[in-house]
Parts: sequence; structure tokens; C-alpha cells
Amino acid sequence: MLDANSSYLIVQFDWSLLHWNGGILERLAEGLVIGDGGLLFALEKRGYVKAGPFTPECTVENPEAVKQLHREFLRAGADVMQAFTFYASDDKLKNRGNKVSDQHTCAGVNAAGCRIAREVASEGDALVAGGLSQCPTYLNGGAKAAVQAEFKIQLDEFVKNKVDFLICEYFEHIEEIEWAIEEALKTGKVVAATMCIGPEGDLHNVTPGECAARMAKAGAKIVGANCHFDPTKLLDCVELMKEGLVKANLYKDTYLMIQPLGYHTPDAGKQGFIDLPEFPFALEPRILSRWDMHAYARRAYNIGVRYIGGCCGFEPYHVRAVSEELTAERGGRIAEGSEKHDMWGAGLKMHTKPWVRARANKEYWENLNPASGRPHSASQSKPDNWGVTKGDDSLKQ
Amino acid sequence: MLDANSSYLIVQFDWSLLHWNGGILERLAEGLVIGDGGLLFALEKRGYVKAGPFTPECTVENPEAVKQLHREFLRAGADVMQAFTFYASDDKLKNRGNKVSDQHTCAGVNAAGCRIAREVASEGDALVAGGLSQCPTYLNGGAKAAVQAEFKIQLDEFVKNKVDFLICEYFEHIEEIEWAIEEALKTGKVVAATMCIGPEGDLHNVTPGECAARMAKAGAKIVGANCHFDPTKLLDCVELMKEGLVKANLYKDTYLMIQPLGYHTPDAGKQGFIDLPEFPFALEPRILSRWDMHAYARRAYNIGVRYIGGCCGFEPYHVRAVSEELTAERGGRIAEGSEKHDMWGAGLKMHTKPWVRARANKEYWENLNPASGRPHSASQSKPDNWGVTKGDDSLKQ
Amino acid sequence: MLDANSSYLIVQFDWSLLHWNGGILERLAEGLVIGDGGLLFALEKRGYVKAGPFTPECTVENPEAVKQLHREFLRAGADVMQAFTFYASDDKLKNRGNKVSDQHTCAGVNAAGCRIAREVASEGDALVAGGLSQCPTYLNGGAKAAVQAEFKIQLDEFVKNKVDFLICEYFEHIEEIEWAIEEALKTGKVVAATMCIGPEGDLHNVTPGECAARMAKAGAKIVGANCHFDPTKLLDCVELMKEGLVKANLYKDTYLMIQPLGYHTPDAGKQGFIDLPEFPFALEPRILSRWDMHAYARRAYNIGVRYIGGCCGFEPYHVRAVSEELTAERGGRIAEGSEKHDMWGAGLKMHTKPWVRARANKEYWENLNPASGRPHSASQSKPDNWGVTKGDDSLKQ
Amino acid sequence: MLDANSSYLIVQFDWSLLHWNGGILERLAEGLVIGDGGLLFALEKRGYVKAGPFTPECTVENPEAVKQLHREFLRAGADVMQAFTFYASDDKLKNRGNKVSDQHTCAGVNAAGCRIAREVASEGDALVAGGLSQCPTYLNGGAKAAVQAEFKIQLDEFVKNKVDFLICEYFEHIEEIEWAIEEALKTGKVVAATMCIGPEGDLHNVTPGECAARMAKAGAKIVGANCHFDPTKLLDCVELMKEGLVKANLYKDTYLMIQPLGYHTPDAGKQGFIDLPEFPFALEPRILSRWDMHAYARRAYNIGVRYIGGCCGFEPYHVRAVSEELTAERGGRIAEGSEKHDMWGAGLKMHTKPWVRARANKEYWENLNPASGRPHSASQSKPDNWGVTKGDDSLKQ
Repeated sequence: MLDANSSYLIVQFDWSLLHWNGGILERLAEGLVIGDGGLLFALEKRGYVKAGPFTPECTVENPEAVKQLHREFLRAGADVMQAFTFYASDDKLKNRGNKVSDQHTCAGVNAAGCRIAREVASEGDALVAGGLSQCPTYLNGGAKAAVQAEFKIQLDEFVKNKVDFLICEYFEHIEEIEWAIEEALKTGKVVAATMCIGPEGDLHNVTPGECAARMAKAGAKIVGANCHFDPTKLLDCVELMKEGLVKANLYKDTYLMIQPLGYHTPDAGKQGFIDLPEFPFALEPRILSRWDMHAYARRAYNIGVRYIGGCCGFEPYHVRAVSEELTAERGGRIAEGSEKHDMWGAGLKMHTKPWVRARANKEYWENLNPASGRPHSASQSKPDNWGVTKGDDSLKQ
Repeated sequence: MLDANSSYLIVQFDWSLLHWNGGILERLAEGLVIGDGGLLFALEKRGYVKAGPFTPECTVENPEAVKQLHREFLRAGADVMQAFTFYASDDKLKNRGNKVSDQHTCAGVNAAGCRIAREVASEGDALVAGGLSQCPTYLNGGAKAAVQAEFKIQLDEFVKNKVDFLICEYFEHIEEIEWAIEEALKTGKVVAATMCIGPEGDLHNVTPGECAARMAKAGAKIVGANCHFDPTKLLDCVELMKEGLVKANLYKDTYLMIQPLGYHTPDAGKQGFIDLPEFPFALEPRILSRWDMHAYARRAYNIGVRYIGGCCGFEPYHVRAVSEELTAERGGRIAEGSEKHDMWGAGLKMHTKPWVRARANKEYWENLNPASGRPHSASQSKPDNWGVTKGDDSLKQ
Repeated sequence: MLDANSSYLIVQFDWSLLHWNGGILERLAEGLVIGDGGLLFALEKRGYVKAGPFTPECTVENPEAVKQLHREFLRAGADVMQAFTFYASDDKLKNRGNKVSDQHTCAGVNAAGCRIAREVASEGDALVAGGLSQCPTYLNGGAKAAVQAEFKIQLDEFVKNKVDFLICEYFEHIEEIEWAIEEALKTGKVVAATMCIGPEGDLHNVTPGECAARMAKAGAKIVGANCHFDPTKLLDCVELMKEGLVKANLYKDTYLMIQPLGYHTPDAGKQGFIDLPEFPFALEPRILSRWDMHAYARRAYNIGVRYIGGCCGFEPYHVRAVSEELTAERGGRIAEGSEKHDMWGAGLKMHTKPWVRARANKEYWENLNPASGRPHSASQSKPDNWGVTKGDDSLKQ
Repeated sequence: MLDANSSYLIVQFDWSLLHWNGGILERLAEGLVIGDGGLLFALEKRGYVKAGPFTPECTVENPEAVKQLHREFLRAGADVMQAFTFYASDDKLKNRGNKVSDQHTCAGVNAAGCRIAREVASEGDALVAGGLSQCPTYLNGGAKAAVQAEFKIQLDEFVKNKVDFLICEYFEHIEEIEWAIEEALKTGKVVAATMCIGPEGDLHNVTPGECAARMAKAGAKIVGANCHFDPTKLLDCVELMKEGLVKANLYKDTYLMIQPLGYHTPDAGKQGFIDLPEFPFALEPRILSRWDMHAYARRAYNIGVRYIGGCCGFEPYHVRAVSEELTAERGGRIAEGSEKHDMWGAGLKMHTKPWVRARANKEYWENLNPASGRPHSASQSKPDNWGVTKGDDSLKQ
């Protein structure tokens, strides 16, 4: 692979100077930001991430694979490339039998992730975000300083690699994300913050509304929810977050953000899809169709969410569907990937068989409840629910 | 992109000299060949193929995307890289409003497909196959010479680009595939032949057993079925093909091959998944899990199939599951992509939550009937069934 | 059979003198009262009630059929025979094209219903209850006096026929049931009151807790909910009613009562099963099994409900299952009908086939999720929801 | 009600002299005979039959309950009252722990069953049939003489009680039903014969076509299938029987008969619903709606079946639906029970709520796929399949 060579040149250059549309806050002020999709699960299916530890060392091991996926999200209309830095903290790379730390460091993995994201972002006009997530040190009952020390290692790389802004995401405890926001703000960059909670609130029963207000008070300019739930439930949560911000008189200074699962989870309990029996290896029947994405994007926009992206389960065509639904709201911008996708199935007009051509319309796809093809499957599962949380012995890593 | 430059060097060199394990027949004689997965549908989801016409011009337009997908299949254990030449015949590139022929030729698209496949095949030890599929000229009632002329354009590129063998695939009419085999044999290369039919036979009611015997008599050394049905139904079909070969005393000189859908289709009628209301944009709930793939691979092997691959819906992790199930039969060879996948969910032993760790075993995943997460979906659909076939006006292109 | 003849004698005699266990309050004080099941829907399926108007003129037309069903509920363990007087008010017998009033009067239908109920009650040791339900006059915006006049006609018959107590049931508006309770109390009889509401409250958004408190304040000694929802949702509602009574300091003087549907309604909205597309002619797949009834009875008892019966969809074997689950709580009393039903499927030990004998145990039936046998059915429907209520023109009768 | 008294007179009197429309063959020649429904399962739910042994001693113990159910089927349009004599052979009454034989004899149970059936038949214009079913003696490997001796005891009562014709039904082995037909013919009465087999044939792999021909050759004038499968599968079987009769040149002298389950069994294997995990206590979700019955009746009639009835799961309203669908074919006769049922939901025009009134039409109900209301249920089960048959030790009684 020769791509990597060119990237060495790239890091000498401040790409952010080239942003025609300004930074994340400017873009949100102008209207709408489309997020990207789920690098972690997509790369697992492509063969580059191990389910279980779920760590992102492939940024170093197989950069071409990560780069290609970023590119697909860019072509799908994503305005942000999230560097693949999820679960890259040092305490996670050596957690529970994971031996990634024998060969990789948090710093190395994060630096590579940032470089790749920047290379692809520069192929279009996207921003690059660096991300922090919850870490084992917190679950083990570690002190604030120890937890923030983990975050700082990641943040130092994000600064060195000049990411455009930061996302604190996938936190189940409001306290931990407050610590993360506090640490992230020391970089001087804009901080977005999303928790992986649903309408029932965080694992200590803090409501979504209160979580949102606390994140905003902690300094996040963009707040919301990500992962763990399907668009329906996560939007329910974000609606409650909005109410909380309004009540705390913080709504007018804060943008709403959502990055839900690409899996239907009507049966998920408080801890979300992790507890469903199908997690993580039998979620296929739950995958959202592109038409589900249209409904999601519309509802999100109507609620007032302005940063609309995806998390685990979102493939490039899902992000493209979000972009297509919100074409007008994006000022008519058409994603490059839409050259290969006519709206609402119109491409089927070119199909060989007339009864397939008859499906080339919006009404058909909007009203279809797709069959599962699985006569021995139910529609819902009962979540495992051990009901333990931070500090519980069974969670110590 | 600099990759393409290196590929120009590559075509000067006859990679087939480097095959340690010989050609396709030698490999089949030794035991087992794992096919790759569904380039067409995977690239549609990645944003490079338009559903409707379903033509492969991205081999020229976005070679890096095609190459990356090939590489993922290779890493998943595929022994064959099928050049992305499906529906690349000239009469298809300009069919029904598709204007690809304004910018591309069959020859150009096929040559690019072969080059990319060879580049990736050479990263491992895979063979390259060129493929022919049914063409509009036949559906329009074209004469044998006209149909074979379409095939010849593709075959000339396959010869120039030194593919290792040929696959005639995705034919619904036994007559047309006989014509294809006849033409393909003129290249002197080994020919495999698979029809997209189910247990009910071809669209003129020729049984699977008779189809298999006729394909073998026409000169195909490897015969079977691909696409249109899920593993269960397609294996039912291949079992009938085997019976037909046995009855015609052709079985001992012929290998069986199968490349089914990665979608469950218990409700498909004679023409397969095309007729299901969910085709092609709402098939998500039907996607097979990796565990479904284990069952498929085992049953295929037990029936005596020795070329076991996939078609539409097969993602890299599906092929990896086939490889993992048949590890022993492959002489213990482990696919590169399995470095990121411990068998039967064992990677979950490293998960943070104890109730997820409890899922790290074969029995759990083998017995799970995954919920659809769709309370408003049924398990089966009723196929559209217009019951028309070759020569019908509604099918003229 | 002597029944009909003796019934003429019976009306001369005050059966209430023969009650060994006292009236309804004494029985509740002692522990537990099992209600009967759904006369209306059971008699519709038996051919004696017309769906649409849903009026009970068969008490006069086919008393033997009503009597036999009462007897089956008695044998199933019911402690109360509710006279079949549902929707028997004069304004309902001539409503919306129903011409029952050409041949029958409210008084006649109610008197016959009371006589039949008494005859069967006397075959065992059951009480007889007379019932009032919501009436068209209220929906049409009728004044309190007009509404109560309708009730009084029924109540006069209940008094004449010496029912043991009264049940005001199937009211969607708290105001109307307060009027019914007030009128019913004038008879001097004990009054039970149940609304056909779910956890979302009545059609004017009065919460279940407030409804319960208001019914108790109005003078009902037994309060709760009936019809419209399955046991799960209706128990959720009754739990909220209990909280409301506790909060209003009325709980210690009030008994809780529940008579839910025998149909699963997880998808019902605020107005319950009426709005589901399957109402009333395609509810079959939703029918509860006897094992669902065990779970219902146990949960109801644990919540503190002491009058546990059923409504539409409850067949005799459903009531028997409730009785069987609560055998210990009933002081070991076994219903006569249980002579033909060994607990938890134990009768299957006598089955011919060994694999059916293997099902003769509690664990088997408790854990079975029965298949629907309907591959084209979903698990949930979307309720019709016109969102209109009292006084709306479309509801005027 | 005078019925019981008059019944004592009735047995002195030959009611068959009063049949205006002649016997069963005359009625079939004239057009169409509607059978009744499933006494066994209906009476189990009403509390009079024990599941497991499934014996009919309630004809003696609770004649009023049996009589009422017969009456409901009569009112629903049934032209035949099958005396409740299923499994009443002496060897069954004392089988596998069943102690019914301590108090009852085959003769007593059968005589009572015939009397009750005649009483109700005489309320209308129905015929009375006596029935023979498979017996433990055969399963235990008993000789022909021993098996026929069991049948003779029942037949003697049928003769004494002057039933109009005989039905040999619910046989899984063609040999045993041939023995039954032979014995039954000695009474001089017309014999109908139905096996409880599906399209796969009897338990010794005799095809439906061959079974039908053998039953006709043995002397049955009416042949077909009953129980074990839903209308769809059982009609598939009867279609094969018709082909067998045609091929054997016996069709023109033989009438076709069908009495299927009232449960959907798309997933049943060769031995039918007995093997489904839901048998017999969790079949609720599979119950056919009245609209399913319309489709059944129409298809049965179109195939040429002229005796169209029901078996386990058929309630009175199911038989009424069959009668209603075939009103024209019955010469416009309307069943008495249809007075309480307007066709195709028309009674809903009298419903209070406008959105329920909107359901009062055929198109609505014909096209509805009713939801199961069970999010944790699949649509199909896997049948238990121990694959043992006559003579196997595990089946010896």
C-alpha cells in the first residue's frame, strides 16, 4: 500500500484552514450536520475488528480497510469523519485477556485513526472528530484523576493530529461523562457529548433531561445520545433531553445530536441492545432498511436535532438514506454515493422484470412491513438483565 | 489513488505461474474450494452499484472499492476471486434506460474487473474466475448466434486477462446456459455452470436433475446452482441435481457447486427472491447470521458439494463462517480474517459484562432463534407471481 | 332435565337466605372471590349474540344456552354468576338500527337474565350479581337524570329479582360511572365498580389512581378495571388504582377487582381492543392459553386483588385455570370442572403417544411460547385511533 | 323445556322415518352436507372431557352439556349430528391409567351419545351418525378379530339406537380402517370413512390416493380425511385422494368428505398436530377465524368435496361460517344461528364507534392478516418426531 506515504505529507499541513464551511458549530448554525455510521460493527463484519474486546487496532494493522469505509461514509453524505478511536484507551487494550497492548499503544492507535480520517475528510469537505468513551478504570471504581489520565492520553493525540472537534460518546454514567467533558475542554476544542442511554436514563437513574442539562452545564455545546437503542427509542430519549435543556434554560445555546443503532430494539431494556440475547452475533433480522432511515431522519429533524448520524449497525447506505431524506434541508446537496441510488427505489424502473419495476415508488417502500423470512423467530426477545452497575464485583475488569 | 499504477505492472506478468496448488480442478480433487461472496449487493450497500440495472461499471469508476471488497473475501478464506463482471454484457449496459454504455464498454469493464481480481488474488493464493450471466438478447428471443456473440465479447477479455477458469452463472433457462457453456469451452478453459433455479426447476419446467445432466453433457466440469434462494432451498435443488447426475452416470466426473443467497427465503416461489415484495430494498430481516452459515456449510459438505461459496447477501463475515466451519476439511487452514474472530463467539470471553461473556459458546449461538425486532412484520411474504417467461412481451428489453 | 320447571318455583323463593358463606363483602373478607368469564363473546361464538349491537336478548330467546354457559363457569370455580344484562338498557336495545326493542324490553331481558343466573348459582354456592354498563344516552350528551333513568330501569329488575350485589362495569368515563354508582347505591346493595380503562386512564385523561379514588368516594366498596385490555395491561392499570387508593387513604376500606380480556393486547392504545383491526372477528390468535391464566391469577393475587374474574374472551377453561392456580388461596377448594383437568397437564400421562406424555409437567407449559401457525401474520397491529370521545358527533347514537 | 322427558319417548320411536330429505346418500346426491364440529375439544374447554385420555363419558355424566353443544352445531347449519362416541371403545376406557371403565361401559357411553344426538337432530332436520375410531388393541398388535370385536360393541349400540349412518374416522393405518369398514358394513348401514392423514399418507407410507381407493374398495361410499391437519393441508390430502379415486375408476361412485382441524398447522409433520409442541394445551394462537372458514369451505366445494365439516377446534361459529359461505349451494337455506350473524361483518354497522362500523365489509375481513398479540411467539414450531408407529414398544398401551 502506497497510500500511507502520502499521509505523512498530510500531517505537516493544517487541513482545517481549508474548510469552506467553517467548524462544527458554524455548520450546525447553518443548518444540519450528517454524522457517519458505525465503524466498529462494519469493520467487524469486514474482518478487521474482534467482537468481544471491540478495540480499534486495525487503524495501524489495516489502514486501507478503515480508509475505504470512511470513504464510503463520506460518499454517503457524512459531514464528519469520526476517527476510529473507540475503546482505544490503554486500560481497554489490555483488558480481560485482550493482548492488543502487547503490540499497540493507545497513542499509536489514535494517531493512526486521526491520520486516516483526515485523509478521507480531505477527499471531500468533512470535519474530523476525535472520540472518548467510557473506560474500565471508571467501572473498577477508579478515582477521577485516574479516569481523566486515561482520557488525556487520547486527547493529546487528538491535539497533535489537529482534529476539528471532540466527541465524548458512549457513556452510561453521567458522572463519568462530566469528567470526560471537563478533560476534553482543556484542549480548547469544541466538545460534543452523547450518552448511550434510553428514555429510562443513566445507570444511576438520572433522567435523560437531567443528563442533558448536566452535560451542557459541564461545557458540551452539542449534547444527545448514541448507540444502545434504535432510532425510535433513542429519539424518545433525545426528546426528553430537549425538555430537560428547555427546563434548565440551556436549550438555546446547545445543539442536539443523535447517533442511534442501525438495529431495531423495541424489546431492549434499560441497558439497551447489549442485554438482548442476539447481541452481538445474531442481530441481522433487526437491521434497519434504508426506508426506516428515512423515517428516522425526518423525525430527528422535526424534533430539532441538527447533528444526525449513526452508530453500530449503520452501513454506508444507511447514512446515504439519511442524506437523501434531508436533501432539501442540506441546501440541495446530493451525496456522491447517490449517483448510484435513485430516490425511493426509482432505479428499479430499469429492472428486467415488470413486477419489480412496479416497486419503483415511494408509497410501495414506505408501507412495506418486510417479512423476516424466519418462521421460527419471534418478534421480540427478553433481555438478560443482571441489573448490576459501576462498582459491582462482576463488572470489575 | 496510486494502486492502479502498480496494477499496470501486474498485467505484464502471468500470475497463474505462481499457483502453488494448481487450478480449480486440482484444488477440487484435493478437497474443497471456498467461493467468495456477493460483490453486487455488497457494493450496492457501499454505494458503488445501482440497484435496478445492477451493472458493474465501478470496476472502472471506483476500482479501490472493488479491490477492498475482494481483499475482504480473500481474508475471509475465499479460494476464488470472481472478477466483478456480472451483467457486464454490452446489451445489458444499455438496457431499459441504463446509460452506462455512454461511458463504458463491456470490454473495458471486464478487463478492469479481471485486473482487480488478479491483484487481490495475488495477495494470497486464490484463483481468478471470469463469469457469464444471462443476457437481454436471449430474453428478447435472440438467436443462438446473437446470444453467443454477447458472451464472446466477455470471453475475449477473460482470455486476454488470463483468468484461471470460467463460471457460467445466473441462468434461468437451461437452453441459454448450454449456449454459454458451448461458447465458453472454446477458450480452452475449465467451465463451471450454475443456474439460479430452485427445486422446481428452470422456467420451462426442466427439473434440476435434468438441468444438471445437460450442463455436464454440455461440457461443464463443475455444476450446481447459485443465487435466487437461500441455502436451504438451494441445497434441496443441488441434491436433486446430484440425483440427476447419478442417474445419468455423470456424477463421478463432475463436481457440485453452490453459491446461494445470504437471505432466508422460505417463502420464495419458483422465480426466487426477485418476486418477494422485499426485493431488493427491504431484505434486511432475512440476512443470514454467521451461525446460519455454519449450518449451511456443513450440510453442503455432507451432500458432497465441493465448491461452496455465496451470492447476493454474502458479506465477508459470512464467507469467513463457511471457512471456519470447514477448517478441518480445508486441512486446518485458517483464514487471515479469523485472527479477528474466535470460533463460536469465544471472543466474548473478553467482554466487559458478565452476561455477555456467558454467551461465549457454541451451544448458545446454535440454538438461538433471533428475534426480528419488528412487531409489525410477518415471517413470510407472498411472492409476486406474474408467471411470464422468455419471449413474453412484458420481458422484452 | 327439570330445570325449566323448577325455575318457575325458584323465583318465589329468596335464595339469598341459603348462602352459607355470606355476601360478597364477607367472602372478600375471608379471602378470595373468583369471577366468571365473558358471557357476551362466548355466546356470540355459540350463536346467540349478534356482534355489532352486542345486546343480551338471548336471556329471553334461548335461556337454555345462557344457562349452560353459566353452569360451565360455575363448574370452573366461579363464585359469582353475573346475570347476562350487559348493554340491556332500553336506549341500547333500539340503538343504531338494532331492532331488538321491537320484541324485547330492558325489564324483560334483565329479569330473565337474573332468573337464569340464580338457577345456576343455586346449583352451587355462588352469588348473583346484576350489572350496569355505559349507555348511549351518556355518549349523546344526555343529562345526569336521563342517564340515571336508564340505569334505574335495570336496577328495579335487579331488586325485584333479588340479586346479591351490583356491578357497575365497562365505563370509559369516570363521570358516568359515578352517576351509575350513585344510582345503584339507592338499592341498598353493595356496589362494585370497574372501568374499561388502561394505564393511560379514562377518555378524559383522568388517571387510574384518581378514577379509583373517585369510585371509592362515590361509594363503591370494590373497585377496579374490566375488559378492553389483556391481563398484563389491565393489571398495570389496577396497580395504579391501588396506588391512587393508598394515596387517598381509601385502600383499607376498598377491595380491588379485575376482569380483563382473554385476549393478548400488547399493541392496544388508550381505547383498548376495540380499536385493534382484529376486533371483533379476528381475535383468535390473541386468545390466552390456560397457562397465561395461571400467570395472570398469580400476579393479580400478589398485587392484592381479591376479586379475580374475566371478561370478553374468557371461556370456562380460563376461569378454571384461575381457580386452579389459586387453589391454596381458596382454602383447597377444587372446582367441579377440575375433575376433568389434572393440574399442569398431568392428564397427558394417559396419552397414547410417549412424546405427548413427556409434556405432562408444569415446566413444559410454563416455558412454551406457542407458535401462531400464521406465517403471514405479524405479532402486533396498529390500532385505529380516531381520538374522539363523548359528545363528538361521530359518536352520537 | 321439555326435551329430557320427550327423549324417553324418542327411543321407542324410529325417527329416521321422519327425514324429509332422505338419508346421507340422498342428501349428498342432492348437493351438499355440512358436518358438525369438534365435540371433543369444545367439551374439554367447557369442562367435561379430560385431555389426555380424551374419552366421552360425559354423555352419561353431563348429558345436558353435550346436548347444548349439539344444538349449537345444529343451529350453525350442521346437517349431521355425530354422536359423541369418539374413543369410547372398552379398550380405550381403561387404557394407560384411565379409570373410566370402573364406572362406565362402552355400551352405556355410546347409547347415551346416540340418544342425545337424536334428540337434537330431531329439533331440526339433521341425521345422526355413529362413529368408530382407531383403538389400542390395534396399536398393541392385536389380531383382526380382536380389533373388530372392539368395534362390534360400539356398532351394536349404533344399530340399537338407530343411527342413520356410520363414520369410520381418525385412523392412521389403512389396514385398521379397512377392518373397521368391513365390520361396519355388517350393520347394513351406509359407511363413511376418513383417515387422519395428510398429503404424506398413512403411517406405513401408503399414499392418500391409494388409501382412498382402498377405503372405497372396502365398501365406504364416502371417503376422505379428518383431524390432524388444518384445512389447507387436509384439502391437499383430499385432492390427492380424489386423484387416487379417479385413477382407480372409483370416483363416480364415491363422495368426498373432509373434517379438518380448526387450527392452523403449516408446520405439522406427517403425524399432524399431535406432534406440535402446542398440542393440546397451547393451540389458541392457531385457531381459525370465521373468515379462514369461508376460504376453506369455498376451496373444499371447488375441489368437489360434498361432505364438509370440522373436527377438533371447530366451534359452532366456525360451522356457521361454512354454512354461510355455501348458502347458495345449500339452496339458500340459512342456518338458525345466522339470525345472530350478519354476513361478512355487516352487524358492525350497528356498532357505537364509527371506525368499527368501517369494518363492516367483506374486503376488510378477507384481507386482514390478524396479529398474534404475542411478541415472543414465532409463527411456526418444530414438531416432535419420534417416528414410531404400530407395534413399537413405546406405543403399546
